[in-house]
Amino acid sequence: MSVGSGVVDSTGWVSSAPRAERARQVADVIRHQITSGAFDGVLPDELALGRRLGASRNAVREALGLLRAEGLVERRRGVGTLVVRPKYGHGLDRLAGLAEALEGYGEVVNEVRSAGVAAAPPAIAARLGLAPGTEVVHLERLRRLAGVPLSLDTTYLTADIGLPLLDADLAGRDLFALIEETCGRRLGRADVVVHAVTAGPDTATLLEIPAGTAVFALERLTHLDDGRPVDAESIHVCADRLTLRATLHRGPA
Amino acid sequence: MSVGSGVVDSTGWVSSAPRAERARQVADVIRHQITSGAFDGVLPDELALGRRLGASRNAVREALGLLRAEGLVERRRGVGTLVVRPKYGHGLDRLAGLAEALEGYGEVVNEVRSAGVAAAPPAIAARLGLAPGTEVVHLERLRRLAGVPLSLDTTYLTADIGLPLLDADLAGRDLFALIEETCGRRLGRADVVVHAVTAGPDTATLLEIPAGTAVFALERLTHLDDGRPVDAESIHVCADRLTLRATLHRGPA
Repeated sequence: MSVGSGVVDSTGWVSSAPRAERARQVADVIRHQITSGAFDGVLPDELALGRRLGASRNAVREALGLLRAEGLVERRRGVGTLVVRPKYGHGLDRLAGLAEALEGYGEVVNEVRSAGVAAAPPAIAARLGLAPGTEVVHLERLRRLAGVPLSLDTTYLTADIGLPLLDADLAGRDLFALIEETCGRRLGRADVVVHAVTAGPDTATLLEIPAGTAVFALERLTHLDDGRPVDAESIHVCADRLTLRATLHRGPA
Repeated sequence: MSVGSGVVDSTGWVSSAPRAERARQVADVIRHQITSGAFDGVLPDELALGRRLGASRNAVREALGLLRAEGLVERRRGVGTLVVRPKYGHGLDRLAGLAEALEGYGEVVNEVRSAGVAAAPPAIAARLGLAPGTEVVHLERLRRLAGVPLSLDTTYLTADIGLPLLDADLAGRDLFALIEETCGRRLGRADVVVHAVTAGPDTATLLEIPAGTAVFALERLTHLDDGRPVDAESIHVCADRLTLRATLHRGPA
């Protein structure tokens, strides 16, 4: 086994580590504390944070620099270091719409940027199990929580599911709830693939974040409870506002 | 309900959308096709891709530009557009180590950058349910798949679990398997929080990616099957190599 130097000082940080590395480790812990709600919008000053984390003031200062670059905190003169936006957790344990998952945090309002009928491009048709060119319903929604953009959702629905929704309250309701109410069936499973990407100029403008900010790009294919895929989505989620959470179980190999 | 212009042309893309927006939508579809293995390392040329996606050559060209900026593809003269690195899926359905999850894709080798005993910083102690300053085992491992960096893992283990591991094959084995073998108990659940962040200079250097590339930052707290937390980790994962996958079920509200 090859083991690194591994000299750990009494504060629990690896003292042989270069400064940049220690800053990263301290940033990891502060990020965790922010998202677990340890601070009420304002961080303690560098000295107090250092005591709490068992880290030097220099390490704390550099860690805060990394978190500022992530867009998680900002320094405001005379006030200190602020958490820019509260981060909400979206569970990956159960299939839920955004408004449903964030109930109690504020109102989710959808700006419907596009809603209409389209011929399914071959790649979309394949995901929905349709012949290329089959008529589908295309939606694009910019979703805000308490007025601030949270995600940009591009959705393709099979015609039988999607057409009745064009007259529904797409601005005020989750698509999942609308689908279940309108077609009278329950949704079943969704296959989700999560990417982390940097926001391109268009995504950044719509989500009101600087271009180059990290966002989640989710691909989600949702099925009715009989297993038929009806809803293929690409979703860009502001990663500075939302974390994805899951409880995993070890279970059998 | 406020509905956008919603004019959709015969190819299924919203023709009223600005070019940047259409490029983003086409990029979403190409990204999905790449990660679902539709291409064997080389993408079709722009015209063929356009036919496949029902999009104009201009839209395809701009979409490929976005995917190049994400680090997902690169253009090579005389060859075409290549997928830079294959993307592997890591399931979020079950608690598994990296080597276990990627079995069959290549050998996972861990560069152990640090392994030693430390006094738990207060924030770490709180996660592990220990008094601040309690002795814990600190590990830092850079994990490679087939030689290429995949993740950077910072781990704190309770002393009873961690101390016996300092003599184990940390370079060649998953921590989860080692823990279960060494302590003779099964792991139970892990609570995982996933962030998307841009890589700082230190993380970028270690993971051999450009600074500013989007990476996953995972916080994972793993418990033994009796519910005791024993393993608190911060993990930075190359998002250009790994996606996170989950199957969600609708279930009861």
